[in-house]
Formats: sequence, structure tokens, C-alpha cells
Amino acid sequence: MQTSSVGSDEVGRAAQRLAGLVWRTPVVRCDFLDAATGTRLWLKAENLQLGGSFKIRGALLATTRLAACGGRGVLAQSTGNHAIAVALAARRQGLATTVVLPEDALPNKVRRLGEIGARVVTAGTTLADRLAVLDELRERDGYSVVDPYENRSVVVGQGTATAELIEQVEHEGGRLDAIVVPIGGGSAIAGACLAVSGRAIDVVGAEPAAVPAFAAALGAGRPVTVPAGLTIADGLRPDRVGALPFGIARDAVDRIVPVPEAAIADALRAALLHARLLVEPAAATALAAAIDLGPELGDDVGVLLTGGNVETSLITSLLADPVAALT
Amino acid sequence: MQTSSVGSDEVGRAAQRLAGLVWRTPVVRCDFLDAATGTRLWLKAENLQLGGSFKIRGALLATTRLAACGGRGVLAQSTGNHAIAVALAARRQGLATTVVLPEDALPNKVRRLGEIGARVVTAGTTLADRLAVLDELRERDGYSVVDPYENRSVVVGQGTATAELIEQVEHEGGRLDAIVVPIGGGSAIAGACLAVSGRAIDVVGAEPAAVPAFAAALGAGRPVTVPAGLTIADGLRPDRVGALPFGIARDAVDRIVPVPEAAIADALRAALLHARLLVEPAAATALAAAIDLGPELGDDVGVLLTGGNVETSLITSLLADPVAALT
Repeated sequence: MQTSSVGSDEVGRAAQRLAGLVWRTPVVRCDFLDAATGTRLWLKAENLQLGGSFKIRGALLATTRLAACGGRGVLAQSTGNHAIAVALAARRQGLATTVVLPEDALPNKVRRLGEIGARVVTAGTTLADRLAVLDELRERDGYSVVDPYENRSVVVGQGTATAELIEQVEHEGGRLDAIVVPIGGGSAIAGACLAVSGRAIDVVGAEPAAVPAFAAALGAGRPVTVPAGLTIADGLRPDRVGALPFGIARDAVDRIVPVPEAAIADALRAALLHARLLVEPAAATALAAAIDLGPELGDDVGVLLTGGNVETSLITSLLADPVAALT
Repeated sequence: MQTSSVGSDEVGRAAQRLAGLVWRTPVVRCDFLDAATGTRLWLKAENLQLGGSFKIRGALLATTRLAACGGRGVLAQSTGNHAIAVALAARRQGLATTVVLPEDALPNKVRRLGEIGARVVTAGTTLADRLAVLDELRERDGYSVVDPYENRSVVVGQGTATAELIEQVEHEGGRLDAIVVPIGGGSAIAGACLAVSGRAIDVVGAEPAAVPAFAAALGAGRPVTVPAGLTIADGLRPDRVGALPFGIARDAVDRIVPVPEAAIADALRAALLHARLLVEPAAATALAAAIDLGPELGDDVGVLLTGGNVETSLITSLLADPVAALT
């Protein structure tokens, strides 16, 4: 919770810029989950967003600015949704896109990028490998890099999802006590912190217990690299949070919840079978924290369901055999 | 298409009565499906409705009237969503409910009815078995029967889903050319016909090719019993449409589409993997017709996704092995 509303004003201006460019995704209620948790859950269904993830918001805001400044093209590196979001956003602005992916990138993400018309370059398997190639390409082609974490437009753009959620809940006569957001590199939680500024809404971060990068950063007072355990939440695998989002969120966050793998899997199943929404494990991580804490968070709890890009094989294995999916 | 707006006025009054009692479910857009079909699809996500199905609308309208007239309790027979909807609706009105189910009813539906607090009576496997027991119970307990088809409140209530869809599309600056609705006993399509009356919106009915009850009724000029083939669309298994809904819809419907089983399965997968919505096979039947006809239906096509009550085993088998699920 922050008292100044500078952040929410910035997010509000971003929301105006994005109006008509992104879908105003619905806020879904689920009587079963309300009864099970003993609180009213307001599920912001960004799994239904363009491109299947809230990341299109930050990507569009960043590329709109690049296009306005006469940028020639866009470069992004990512293992997942950020690359797809940047490619979609850049196409809208008429900008060429090159994305640098690891050699072991998921086939369906590579295919999707091809469909969008992005040029795909693969480079090793580590972040360092990708950044080296990114630098080469930037010098050669003169494209601008849209970083998933260290870019204020990206963070502010992600914050518009939370701002919309707050507005939609108020429109229904509710008032959020807390909002639960998953933490990967940190852009979602930093955006949420900006969006709630000036309001009495707690921001709760949920991260896989296997990759406690934000908790470690809070402990050290700065982003540190953690030993990254295995998690099904592919979107939350960064083993270090970004410096920019950490700087925004460190004092504004109210609570960080480490979520066990089994709880992520349970929440994904609950979202699918009870809320009838297909969400990716990152989104399920936030839902799991909300289910776990329930009334401790207040009467009205928002959950940012960040995306819905899931491998079909993960859905079937989670439904058929919860244990197998976790090994 | 009808020229008089008597029907839509009646649906409008019902919508006012239901305001605040049911959820205003979102209309979901999906860029992938738009690109695949060559038309703009507006998916009315009643799978996200209270109780997981649009049937709560008609059930609430009917039971509200019963409660206002001093009814003692409610009786319903059904193999599926109608029983759950009536039990939920009656509980809201403080009315006791007894539901009569076939002996081979799906276990998760029986469990759900128990959770809601309804008394469950099982009777044989045929409609005739259930109706005989229903008559006995009505005489003994003095409860009122809420029929899934031959009850005008039910039909008008179901129509409010279509009315809401039309309004939501207009709010987004669109104008529907057609709406596609699945046909089981006929309450959804009859409700849709009432809701569009006075507007230039085509009503398209989708029924499993395996159970072509509405097409047969149109051919015969009255409801007739058809040999019911196997279909995964359990909500669309009635082998005869209701006389009341048929009378409303017969001249108002613009087109009936027989949908093969494989297309129902494909549409269910598409809804899940691309629109990220879990829908039941009945809803997928309507989506399949919209996908098949695409631009033939116009530029803006509404699809009534009637519900999301699916057996987990059907999801896994459809995702794992499309062929197995159909045998």
C-alpha cells in the first residue's frame, strides 16, 4: 500500500493510451471458489487477453513509444509470453520484430511467433547467450530492445490490468481489500504496486517456493540470483527479479507467499473445472496463494490471472495424474 | 428474424427481474478464432454463469414466480443442468426442491445436487419413468413442477442470455448479424427467437447430426421423436423438442445446422486451447456451427456458450485422443 497516487496517475494515462488496443478482459466470479475460500474472489481474466497474456499491455505501450520516436524495428529476448506480446504489439505498429529464444524453446511458442511474422533467432540456453546475440543484432540492424523487466513502459503497461480490475470491481459495487499477483521477473507486481498507489489495497506477491527470487531480494535488499528449483510455472522461472521492478515494489508490497508445486497444480485444476477458465501455471500460482490465505486477505480479493498459454500435454497430465505433472 | 418486438419486450422485463440474481457473464473475443473463421465471433460465456450454465436464468424466473404465488416447494426432472439450476434457484427463494433423476445419472451431477441441498430421487432410465414418479411426488407433497421445456418463464428466462449478448455487443460498437444457439429440448433457441424479435438478427440453431430433433420437427410440422444416435453433447440428447419452444421458434429460426460429432469435439478443444474457456459439448456444438459457416453468417456472429459442466474424463480424452472420445 502506498499513500501517494503518482503511480496510479501514470498507470491511468497508460490505460487511456491502450484503450481500444487491448481487450477489456472480464472479471470472473466463481461461487464454488468463493464458498471454498470463504472470501469473494474477483478473477481478472487476462488469460482471455489478446495473445493470451497481460503482457501485450506493456509491450504495446513500449512499442507505441518506439514507433512514435521513429524506431526501425524491435528486438526482444524471452523464453515465453513477452516475446509473443512484443511481436504482436510491434506488428500493430508496423515495426519489424526479431526475437531471440533459447534453443530449447517450446515448439508451440516458436510456431506462434512465426504465425505473427516475427523473425526468430535461437541462441544457446542461458540468458547470457541470448543477451550476447541481442547485442550483436542491435548493433547490426539498429533495432530497439524491449526488455521484459528493465523498461518502465512495460511495467506501467502491465499495471493497467490491475487498474482495470479495481475499476471493474468498483463498478460492481465491491471494494478490493487485496490483490494477489504472480512474481516472475517482477513487472506484474511492480505494475500492480503503481496501480494501487493512493488506495488502501494490499498487494500480495505469489512466487513458486522452488524459485523464491523476490523473497531473496527482499532479504538481501537488492535483486540476487537464487538457485532455481523445478517449477511447472514456466512464466515464473526467472531466478532473479529485475532491478527496476524491485525498486518499485520492495516497499509497496505487503506480503510475499511461497507457493508449493502441488498447490499450483491444484489451483490450475480448480480454475479449469470450477471457474471454467484455462490459465497458465503462473496465473494459477496467484490463485493458489489466494485460496490458501482466503479470509486472511480480506472480504474482497482480486487475483490477476496473468495468462492462458499452456501446453496441451500439461493440461492432460494435470487432469489425469496430478503427481506425474510435477515430476 | 421476427418483425414484432413483443417477444423482446417480454425478455426485457425478465432481464430486469433477474438483474442482480444472475451474473452478467462476459462476452469473450478470440483473435485466433476470428482469424480462423474469417468473421468476428462474440462468445457469450454462460459457462461462467452461476451453477455453470445459462439454465439458472429460466429456473430463477420460474421459481421467483412460484415463491411469489406461495408455492410450497419445487419439483424437477432432468438428466442434467436443468435440475441443478432449479435446485440452486429454489434454494435462493427458500423453497424445498426434489429432483427426479435417471438411475444412470452422472455421479458428479448427483453430488452437486446434494451439495445444493436438493432431495434426489432416482427413477428408471427413461423420461416416462421419471414423469411417473414426478406425478406421484406432486400429488403427495403439493410441490410445483418446473418443466425444462413446457414452461414459458423458463423459455423467456433463457432468452435473457441472448438479450444481454445483443446489448453487450452494441456497447462495444458492434451489431450482430446472426446468433448461433444449441438445440436440445428447445428452450435456448426459443428464448433466442424471443430476444431478437424486432431486430435484423438471424437465429441459427445447431444440433448434433446424431439427434436431429428440431430438423425433424420442422419437416413434420410438429415435434416428433427421432431415433437418437450417440452424441458427446449430453445436454442435447432429448430426442424430441418441446411443443412450447417449437411453437415459438419454428417460424422465427433462420437455419438449422446438423453438427457431426468430430466437429463438436474440435470446437470444444478450440474453445479450451484458443479462447481459454472450458465449455460443455452442447456449447461446443453451437461454436462448431459458427466455425463451419463463418462469413456465411455475416461479419458479426454471436455464439451462445450455454454452459461449462463437463466431466473431467471427457476433457482428458478429448485432449489426449480425439477419436477415443467419440467412440
